Amino acid sequence: MTPHFPLTVNAWELPRGLGLAGLRQVAREVHAPGRGEVLLRPRVAALNARDAWMADAPGEGAAQPGSDGAGEVLAVGEGVSTLRPGDRVLASFFPHWQDGPPNPTATRLALGGRGPGLLAQAVLLPAEGLLHLPEDMDFETAASLPTAGVTAWHALFEVGPWRPGEAVLILGTGGVATWALQLAVAAGLRAIVSSSRPERLAQAQALGAAATLRIGRDEAGWAAKVRELNGGQGVDRVIETSGQATLAESMRATRPAGTVAVVGGTSGWGGAVDADALIDGALRLQGVLVGSRRMLADLLRFVQQRGLRPTIAARYGFAELPQAFATLAAGERLGKVLVTLD
Amino acid sequence: MTPHFPLTVNAWELPRGLGLAGLRQVAREVHAPGRGEVLLRPRVAALNARDAWMADAPGEGAAQPGSDGAGEVLAVGEGVSTLRPGDRVLASFFPHWQDGPPNPTATRLALGGRGPGLLAQAVLLPAEGLLHLPEDMDFETAASLPTAGVTAWHALFEVGPWRPGEAVLILGTGGVATWALQLAVAAGLRAIVSSSRPERLAQAQALGAAATLRIGRDEAGWAAKVRELNGGQGVDRVIETSGQATLAESMRATRPAGTVAVVGGTSGWGGAVDADALIDGALRLQGVLVGSRRMLADLLRFVQQRGLRPTIAARYGFAELPQAFATLAAGERLGKVLVTLD
Amino acid sequence: MTPHFPLTVNAWELPRGLGLAGLRQVAREVHAPGRGEVLLRPRVAALNARDAWMADAPGEGAAQPGSDGAGEVLAVGEGVSTLRPGDRVLASFFPHWQDGPPNPTATRLALGGRGPGLLAQAVLLPAEGLLHLPEDMDFETAASLPTAGVTAWHALFEVGPWRPGEAVLILGTGGVATWALQLAVAAGLRAIVSSSRPERLAQAQALGAAATLRIGRDEAGWAAKVRELNGGQGVDRVIETSGQATLAESMRATRPAGTVAVVGGTSGWGGAVDADALIDGALRLQGVLVGSRRMLADLLRFVQQRGLRPTIAARYGFAELPQAFATLAAGERLGKVLVTLD
Amino acid sequence: MTPHFPLTVNAWELPRGLGLAGLRQVAREVHAPGRGEVLLRPRVAALNARDAWMADAPGEGAAQPGSDGAGEVLAVGEGVSTLRPGDRVLASFFPHWQDGPPNPTATRLALGGRGPGLLAQAVLLPAEGLLHLPEDMDFETAASLPTAGVTAWHALFEVGPWRPGEAVLILGTGGVATWALQLAVAAGLRAIVSSSRPERLAQAQALGAAATLRIGRDEAGWAAKVRELNGGQGVDRVIETSGQATLAESMRATRPAGTVAVVGGTSGWGGAVDADALIDGALRLQGVLVGSRRMLADLLRFVQQRGLRPTIAARYGFAELPQAFATLAAGERLGKVLVTLD
Repeated sequence: MTPHFPLTVNAWELPRGLGLAGLRQVAREVHAPGRGEVLLRPRVAALNARDAWMADAPGEGAAQPGSDGAGEVLAVGEGVSTLRPGDRVLASFFPHWQDGPPNPTATRLALGGRGPGLLAQAVLLPAEGLLHLPEDMDFETAASLPTAGVTAWHALFEVGPWRPGEAVLILGTGGVATWALQLAVAAGLRAIVSSSRPERLAQAQALGAAATLRIGRDEAGWAAKVRELNGGQGVDRVIETSGQATLAESMRATRPAGTVAVVGGTSGWGGAVDADALIDGALRLQGVLVGSRRMLADLLRFVQQRGLRPTIAARYGFAELPQAFATLAAGERLGKVLVTLD
Repeated sequence: MTPHFPLTVNAWELPRGLGLAGLRQVAREVHAPGRGEVLLRPRVAALNARDAWMADAPGEGAAQPGSDGAGEVLAVGEGVSTLRPGDRVLASFFPHWQDGPPNPTATRLALGGRGPGLLAQAVLLPAEGLLHLPEDMDFETAASLPTAGVTAWHALFEVGPWRPGEAVLILGTGGVATWALQLAVAAGLRAIVSSSRPERLAQAQALGAAATLRIGRDEAGWAAKVRELNGGQGVDRVIETSGQATLAESMRATRPAGTVAVVGGTSGWGGAVDADALIDGALRLQGVLVGSRRMLADLLRFVQQRGLRPTIAARYGFAELPQAFATLAAGERLGKVLVTLD
Repeated sequence: MTPHFPLTVNAWELPRGLGLAGLRQVAREVHAPGRGEVLLRPRVAALNARDAWMADAPGEGAAQPGSDGAGEVLAVGEGVSTLRPGDRVLASFFPHWQDGPPNPTATRLALGGRGPGLLAQAVLLPAEGLLHLPEDMDFETAASLPTAGVTAWHALFEVGPWRPGEAVLILGTGGVATWALQLAVAAGLRAIVSSSRPERLAQAQALGAAATLRIGRDEAGWAAKVRELNGGQGVDRVIETSGQATLAESMRATRPAGTVAVVGGTSGWGGAVDADALIDGALRLQGVLVGSRRMLADLLRFVQQRGLRPTIAARYGFAELPQAFATLAAGERLGKVLVTLD
Repeated sequence: MTPHFPLTVNAWELPRGLGLAGLRQVAREVHAPGRGEVLLRPRVAALNARDAWMADAPGEGAAQPGSDGAGEVLAVGEGVSTLRPGDRVLASFFPHWQDGPPNPTATRLALGGRGPGLLAQAVLLPAEGLLHLPEDMDFETAASLPTAGVTAWHALFEVGPWRPGEAVLILGTGGVATWALQLAVAAGLRAIVSSSRPERLAQAQALGAAATLRIGRDEAGWAAKVRELNGGQGVDRVIETSGQATLAESMRATRPAGTVAVVGGTSGWGGAVDADALIDGALRLQGVLVGSRRMLADLLRFVQQRGLRPTIAARYGFAELPQAFATLAAGERLGKVLVTLD
């Protein structure tokens, strides 16, 4: 059934500069999709730390939370031949980044924040940023992938050559880290997971970690422990989610010619490099910026083939978004916080 | 206990030009290892089709069969610091090819044929071509890896980028193909195996093939069947073991920008390219020449981590080498033919 | 001045199945550009052998010749923010292939043939397939680049690693070969050019070839001559424009782990591989399919920086297209055949 | 004429912990080359900052200065078939690193410092670390290449894909920077050179820099100036020789998906990363550790083909080594400090 336009839908907004306290639901008018556009009805969205930051990021107008989501096509504009109303689809974080390395044209639009947010009952999106769900994949699995899953995929499989059996050190158990663990295990990598909390390490082991490592919040010198867990060698790759507090030590934990994939900054963005490790170790430090639509397509295929399921910390309804953000902020979870839109 | 040099040992030889009929056991004098050399006592060797060809290859002196083998160090020469008598080791096919692409210096020596052969009770080898066995790996597993395992590893994981979940078409169920199947499955690839014989397809399924395909000996047009088994798309990669009879069709079975890794010629070496597939499909045809010591080290690590076991067609004693070659020539096997040296 | 739509313009067409004899000029109605579209007024077009083939290719409706052209923007549709009427632009062969390897979505539209052809007084094109000309580049230089220049660039610089000082064998002196020679010289490669005609070799030397080689039409065994010209080594790369008659010999002329970039088939498409060269030499045979918009942008930048000028065989007016095709068919030229539209 | 062994030769040494003040000439006994060894008579050596540091590096025994040098073969040991007395050769920095990425086995020995030093009248070296000089290359050119030239080559051409016409920012005009400039220009790159001293910028322009940039010693915010010199875009690559004072700003001067090749630390080793530039820009920071023998061979070929000549700051005799080190320490030079051994 074709909707009547303009349509009025509910959507969440974050006025700039008020932080999460400003979170509010508004009614929004949505026009019919133009050439190359699709109207999506999100059914499940997933939160990321980024959704909270965007509340305070510079820009005009209110931020629109929601980078991750899956749902159904309500209507399509002219020239859209590969999608039809009723199709089950998933949105790519950068709708225009198809393949290859990122460039300003490809990443000119990102979902959530300044771009269209998926925490709305309906949203207009560029058709080229949507992918069909595999037949037997549910919305929850799909919604958990575009930001955290793709970042993990990119950091593991798209930065330089890698080989099965390599050792990967994964810092923490947040959204990216948990997907990194699950993907690494399914692809025959040897995952070593660190956390400051013992219960997280037990959960990581249950997800297939070959070894785990407790690292206290301000602990130094843990690179030696990592090497011990890896037969005396540095690891082949680090998934660096933490930043400031750990960057130099992560480099010291890496074998010559290995890779430190920098994906986050839970302990503060940035950090100093260890010059000896960097140069004498011929290391690669690689910034990872989510990923392309092609990476998301490859990830979808792998998740479906292997029957992987996201690790879900909590589920909330559309009206419960403030509680969902509170859970996200508490930092005590393992895996993704989901929001269901009926 | 240090051996007394010169040592006299039994070894198999293949005088040139007589074919396998010329196979004979001889007594050979072995000198003490010089600087950088190691005296190896092979405990298990594995045969390859190449061992038979070398009987008729041009060259001087008798061919020395045996490219693949694992055993114990008997003695080491000056300057060898990483190996000691009693160490359990494995020999790399090209002892001097350490890493990087092949070049004439790196591949100047190959084991078996013109190079030293491992079908001998003791053999002098360059130390840099030997690797330690992982603690819990037996000689049979190790001996099955250097030629067939490394070729499969190289074709799957070392030619261009690849990602988990990709579809790989593996032609046949010989030594390289069987390792390719086992490695692909363990690394999260989707393996499609073809054979002309139904019982082989059943065995491939038991080893984890996601799909199988019967291809008659002179059958044409099977690329369409492969696409059907792969959701309507060409496969990402073909492990081309067959050559002449299949090369062009393998190319037609491959997706745009995919790879055909050419590793053998069971149906005759070479073949014609399909120009449309090659250019319009932007395909890569890559010749695969066994591999480097680094690849063998990576393969060893992966096989050990995953507890992979070689598929063994038959085992023979040292004195039964003629029977072992007969089994190899019959072409009815799945997996490797091993020779045990007591 | 905005044009009045619908606009009536002259355009050349090639009805299917009549060959070049069917070439005819027609009047065509052009509508205003829609969302994401641009109306281009070509000022210079360049012919390629492909324009002639398309006359006989399967498909519906008449073929529209002209894959290569540069001109001015007449009008832009909604949502086009980076181009304005009057802008001097160049069209990319595959308007939707932005970056990364080719895939069916990226290459769904190609200019010339089934796609829009640039041998028309005005033509509607997707905005994302157009690039601005550098300020000091003329239309002739720009028009000569999209097919032949990008193919040469792709084959030289985008297939695997390459390094300055490498030796490249370039077969012939057609459009792709001539650009390959000029680009190779400007990038510090050592170009070796072959041709069956001595006067072409002299011209190649004038363009900077380090060595030249006469190869008779059915000559065999010339790989040895190439090695002699290259200090006894195989070349690092071959730009294979010829196909059937030369493919195997090109492989024999290549060093271990080198590349044969297959870009054409002037002697017939396809050819048989040399299995020894392919496997023992660990060669890469790579089909090259023109290239992406990103490659064209990189090529434009380089051509402008170095002040490279296309080698032009002949220029014709819009009304003289049949004569232009005749010159193309004669096969006696060096460089590009251009058509000027006033 | 075969030398009589043991030979007594003069050699320079740096006892640990005394700094350059400890520099002394000693008489050393040299034995006949063993299996795989070569006795080299250095004719020209080149100094690097590293030679001075090694005086204070931890280790046992006196440091042996001289990583770079070219000369003649005096004698060869058993098993050395590719070199003969009288051959003109060049030594690779890591004699055992043949190709591929570095690993502890490949880099176990480095010339100068703990390894054999070339500031001696004769020195024993592993044969596999020596390369023949091209026929028309003099010892001075060759001696200037192994450390500074290979580091520049590695940073420019061996880290990820690169294309002709790309913009490279080169910090400073030291030994690595000057070679980077000359190589970049010869390979069709657009070199932008920075220095704190105007006379250096003039010299850089004379060597082919497309643009130059004065950066004061503690100046901040110069990334904007770099972008201005590069048409408003970040550069594709930075040759980071300076470290601490510049690392973050170098990252800000780089385009999305660009590379910062970290090769030195003239302003102090290390530095903090700019997390926005790293992650939002998807940058690669790559530590560069001189390079392999294969890289040196490729560099030699290119230097010879292009007739490049090293930029030489000063020449000294063997007895004048203290003065040569003083010139090196003064930091006022452009290019290499050479030492001639008669």
